[in-house]
Amino acid sequence: MDFASDNTAGASQTILEAILAANKGSVPAYGADPYSAKASELLAQVFEREIACFLVATGTASNALALASLCPPWGGVFCHQEAHVMEDECGAPEMFTAGAKLIGIPGPAGKIAPQDLRAALAAFPAGVVKQVQPAALSLSQTTEAGTLYTYAEIEALTSIAHEAGLSVHMDGARFANALVALQCTPAEMSWKAGVDVLSFGATKNGTLACEAVIFFDKAKAANFPFQRKRSGHTFSKGRFLGAQMVAYLEHGHWLSLAKTANAHALRLAEGLAKVDGVRFAWPRQANEIFVILPGRIDARLREAGALYYDWSSKSFAPGVSPPGPDEVFVRLVTSFATESADVERFITVAQAASG
Amino acid sequence: MDFASDNTAGASQTILEAILAANKGSVPAYGADPYSAKASELLAQVFEREIACFLVATGTASNALALASLCPPWGGVFCHQEAHVMEDECGAPEMFTAGAKLIGIPGPAGKIAPQDLRAALAAFPAGVVKQVQPAALSLSQTTEAGTLYTYAEIEALTSIAHEAGLSVHMDGARFANALVALQCTPAEMSWKAGVDVLSFGATKNGTLACEAVIFFDKAKAANFPFQRKRSGHTFSKGRFLGAQMVAYLEHGHWLSLAKTANAHALRLAEGLAKVDGVRFAWPRQANEIFVILPGRIDARLREAGALYYDWSSKSFAPGVSPPGPDEVFVRLVTSFATESADVERFITVAQAASG
Amino acid sequence: MDFASDNTAGASQTILEAILAANKGSVPAYGADPYSAKASELLAQVFEREIACFLVATGTASNALALASLCPPWGGVFCHQEAHVMEDECGAPEMFTAGAKLIGIPGPAGKIAPQDLRAALAAFPAGVVKQVQPAALSLSQTTEAGTLYTYAEIEALTSIAHEAGLSVHMDGARFANALVALQCTPAEMSWKAGVDVLSFGATKNGTLACEAVIFFDKAKAANFPFQRKRSGHTFSKGRFLGAQMVAYLEHGHWLSLAKTANAHALRLAEGLAKVDGVRFAWPRQANEIFVILPGRIDARLREAGALYYDWSSKSFAPGVSPPGPDEVFVRLVTSFATESADVERFITVAQAASG
Amino acid sequence: MDFASDNTAGASQTILEAILAANKGSVPAYGADPYSAKASELLAQVFEREIACFLVATGTASNALALASLCPPWGGVFCHQEAHVMEDECGAPEMFTAGAKLIGIPGPAGKIAPQDLRAALAAFPAGVVKQVQPAALSLSQTTEAGTLYTYAEIEALTSIAHEAGLSVHMDGARFANALVALQCTPAEMSWKAGVDVLSFGATKNGTLACEAVIFFDKAKAANFPFQRKRSGHTFSKGRFLGAQMVAYLEHGHWLSLAKTANAHALRLAEGLAKVDGVRFAWPRQANEIFVILPGRIDARLREAGALYYDWSSKSFAPGVSPPGPDEVFVRLVTSFATESADVERFITVAQAASG
Repeated sequence: MDFASDNTAGASQTILEAILAANKGSVPAYGADPYSAKASELLAQVFEREIACFLVATGTASNALALASLCPPWGGVFCHQEAHVMEDECGAPEMFTAGAKLIGIPGPAGKIAPQDLRAALAAFPAGVVKQVQPAALSLSQTTEAGTLYTYAEIEALTSIAHEAGLSVHMDGARFANALVALQCTPAEMSWKAGVDVLSFGATKNGTLACEAVIFFDKAKAANFPFQRKRSGHTFSKGRFLGAQMVAYLEHGHWLSLAKTANAHALRLAEGLAKVDGVRFAWPRQANEIFVILPGRIDARLREAGALYYDWSSKSFAPGVSPPGPDEVFVRLVTSFATESADVERFITVAQAASG
Repeated sequence: MDFASDNTAGASQTILEAILAANKGSVPAYGADPYSAKASELLAQVFEREIACFLVATGTASNALALASLCPPWGGVFCHQEAHVMEDECGAPEMFTAGAKLIGIPGPAGKIAPQDLRAALAAFPAGVVKQVQPAALSLSQTTEAGTLYTYAEIEALTSIAHEAGLSVHMDGARFANALVALQCTPAEMSWKAGVDVLSFGATKNGTLACEAVIFFDKAKAANFPFQRKRSGHTFSKGRFLGAQMVAYLEHGHWLSLAKTANAHALRLAEGLAKVDGVRFAWPRQANEIFVILPGRIDARLREAGALYYDWSSKSFAPGVSPPGPDEVFVRLVTSFATESADVERFITVAQAASG
Repeated sequence: MDFASDNTAGASQTILEAILAANKGSVPAYGADPYSAKASELLAQVFEREIACFLVATGTASNALALASLCPPWGGVFCHQEAHVMEDECGAPEMFTAGAKLIGIPGPAGKIAPQDLRAALAAFPAGVVKQVQPAALSLSQTTEAGTLYTYAEIEALTSIAHEAGLSVHMDGARFANALVALQCTPAEMSWKAGVDVLSFGATKNGTLACEAVIFFDKAKAANFPFQRKRSGHTFSKGRFLGAQMVAYLEHGHWLSLAKTANAHALRLAEGLAKVDGVRFAWPRQANEIFVILPGRIDARLREAGALYYDWSSKSFAPGVSPPGPDEVFVRLVTSFATESADVERFITVAQAASG
Repeated sequence: MDFASDNTAGASQTILEAILAANKGSVPAYGADPYSAKASELLAQVFEREIACFLVATGTASNALALASLCPPWGGVFCHQEAHVMEDECGAPEMFTAGAKLIGIPGPAGKIAPQDLRAALAAFPAGVVKQVQPAALSLSQTTEAGTLYTYAEIEALTSIAHEAGLSVHMDGARFANALVALQCTPAEMSWKAGVDVLSFGATKNGTLACEAVIFFDKAKAANFPFQRKRSGHTFSKGRFLGAQMVAYLEHGHWLSLAKTANAHALRLAEGLAKVDGVRFAWPRQANEIFVILPGRIDARLREAGALYYDWSSKSFAPGVSPPGPDEVFVRLVTSFATESADVERFITVAQAASG
């Protein structure tokens, strides 16, 4: 019953087998191999346009490199105050941008509201020398609260950003989970809605270690190869990144994996919704569930071996009262590798504990 | 006939199978898994002492993180003027150290001589505020010229460095190839000879993407986890790095791989030594051969499909005349995956061309 | 009627004359001159203990260098969310620390409350690798709201910080104004209350361009000379910094200057308090006044040639309603060079406009 | 007899008086004052074209900020291997550029020869990802050897640089001394010869602390205000920088000061040339003399109270034998403040010691 994260899972067997299949003969190093070329081709198809894309092994690298391509050292990146780039990367964006500032915007359920973005931008008029210069907006899809921006919501935010001269980054660590939940196309959830650079996550959804940074405006990618190299993120045996991404994308494998993960979360959420005393911090939308558990249920679940993290947030929606003294706020994550039996058992234990 | 690099090869089948075998169930993320623990244990055994070690995916990350743990932003790292950290990492050490300076020391055959290290240090007396402060010595084993430092040579250099208050880093991208060539122990080639931090390379010798940064003085490693995280080099699915390193080390697999690579290089060198007009820039010692080829031989080899890089160097030994107008200076690299038939064919073509 | 800032004033004539007097003969460069030595001696006397101190020319340099000596690149600096280091230095602390993160704490009247510091620290438990590591607390005295921490308040905050392993920096850009307002000793307002490193401002209070970074723990200053040099803040003709600081401190000149500035602010505040419709955002405590003016009064003052800045803040105290649609929120600053006639005229114009 | 440096002198009395004269009333802060505006206007006149210029207080700031505007973090700056930016700024260019690499080019008498620049550039072909990207050439005028580039020499180097896509910076810490020695115009010695950005030094030639960074292509200056601010080099009381520069330039004061300094050096060099055993490392061209003194003469001079620095160099011209065991290599610098009596006495002591 491991619901701690979608990265406590291993990798999709299909993807690992693709790695083995790629282990033949010699091919050029540093990404000049046919597997990486094929990955680029597939990503261009998936996103229905010409792109510049780069494979890296971690989400932190993907985000930090993307932001460094959009924001100078004296710039500011606007993001939700609980965004992963803000809170969970030990200052990677600051390192890669050589000292830019992340400016946190509050908002319920992990989401930035248009009026709050406008207010934040108003505090940073361009050209005021004493302040960092507004350079980029970073949106997380799914958000840190497991919630989703609709197409219209993304479009509203990117329009505001573009009008103010900012570029837009999307942290898509769980892009696939969002996509299958929203039932839109990759293009709609990214460049058609105004995203300039996308961290296209894959590791949480089944690769061993592979993510793509995708530039919809190729001109913005000109310096990326140098930044990737000097940050140590250019793999010598690039074929193994390429092979992962190819297997991830071919035959809609990535979408299947995400649908599985989301389906487990749906079932788990539905089950927990019927348990007395369990409250949802936000509605479940993809593969993460944020619930406030009565202490007794939490205790029984842990005794039964369930794994998950305690959580905290400043993003409770109006109307949701924060966890009380006898409650525990937790995050539950499902993945492609979650087993249905674990989901059912979790619900059963919770149900029993509430009795 | 691909002798371009030891990273145009794939990975050892044994290691890839270990990755598949590790793909079971859920384990804690970010390196807190049993595979990574086992890797640490094996590395401690291999090096015969307590260590602090960290797995990363690329050699550039390994070197840059190691140097950043030894050298402050206002510090200087002494290295051979043609070292990989100096010339081939697009400024990674500068990025990770936040702007330290690499100070190149000349020397024949890619090696630093004790008197040249002393002279370089003499130009940076500690405490002179206008200069960067001497902080570390970085040695490459094997060197960029494919040559080796003996135990005594390493010890002589590390003693000078330590006396001057510097820490010593070894770039062991081809540590295994050096080790089997010198027939000494890992401990002798590192901490017993005075090395403080080792970039223990494995990717060029058969892993998919896995290197270890090894601290022999654990105190120096205190901040490494934060630096690794913020540079995006902490893998979420750390088990797959752990599994690679375990398979690499178990049953002496790493030594077998390196012996194979070196044996191919030996055979190739012996064959080329008999070809009229072929001159060796330096003696072959591990798995790299640096030869000056008559233009005609070079042309025939390339026609026959041989792959290798043109090279250049400021490190020709006294007595070796640099390439003439009808000569081409090239590097040939063998790996665990090199095929004997390719070696023989290369020699045959060269021989025929010289006739 | 220039109340825009205390840096629109020139310098104290006494201090400029000291610069001229120091212009005799040749003396060693880079701070090894007798004037700088004398400045160090006087600062040690003023602070009643052994110190390590360094002269620089700007407050931004002083703060950024101080923070860089306390906080590693992977560290976090806690400060008020409207602190100068947070909002007004275009990312200088981020540049000098090589990418550390500033963590803003809200609080009324520009001040951090102990419980809010505790809450902020609780969100950054030491050793959590994904987060920046808590490294320093930076307090501003006077605050950005022109208010003051009492000795007890400083001591409460520094105790919490020290218990959590943080060092404490004080941004004393208006240290003298605070000191004469609180009627305590420099030692009490700094190291006796737990401050480790002080940005001892002097430029706003009468020097041409001279500030001191003062380390009460000399060990923390070991690397400062290198950081100062590589950031371009080591003056070659150091005598002119030394001479300014000596003249600033001798005969209590600095205290006289600050008393004058504060007295003007007191008179201005008293005058405005009697004007109908003028509201104080916070009580005046030193040489800055933050008032909410009826639009009509603001208009008349500007017509009459008064200079001052519009202001904005998230720090309104409970009980103070934010500026309404017909009100303007402004900051008025007095200095040693303010003329009483301007103060009186400002009050008269405001009074007349309110009639 | 202080010949240690041109920064052991004080400032020109004329310039200090201008500072006092500027101490009237209140003016806008941060460089928006009339003195700074006047300085810009005069600099534009002096350089006979539209420029963007910025005043800072130190030469290190000036150089590092200029280079940071021309070179990205993954770039390389080509300079003489003994250039001030390379050896004497404790890594300031690396800090300000966020980790760019300085690439030293050898050359006799502190000068870069065209063929050596070509060779250095050939080793950094654009687009090779593993290497830093060639971004800028930095020339020192006068050089670290006190020598001068002629117009034709500058033009030859800047042409090579521009063809290769590099921008050109000139470190003009002793620009005035070079100018009066070459008897050309400021425009000829800078933009007419292909210089893009100039560090226009003034401190060594008589200001208290004031230098100008001058962009001949204003577009390159767009981000300079932010870089200057975040590095702490924007003075609040900017009028005092402006006043210095105005007084420096008005009535040709700067040229008079430099002529005086150079004349002292000429007299000193002529005097020493007649002393038996004194050898010149390079010909004197501006206000610095590099001589190899017999040990006995050196000893007598020091006994007599003469101050100067021991020197070392890798730039001895062919034909000049390096200092022997009984010789001392030293640098002598004159300034506007040097006294003729000291020059004569120095010659007399040397003469007597040689007898």
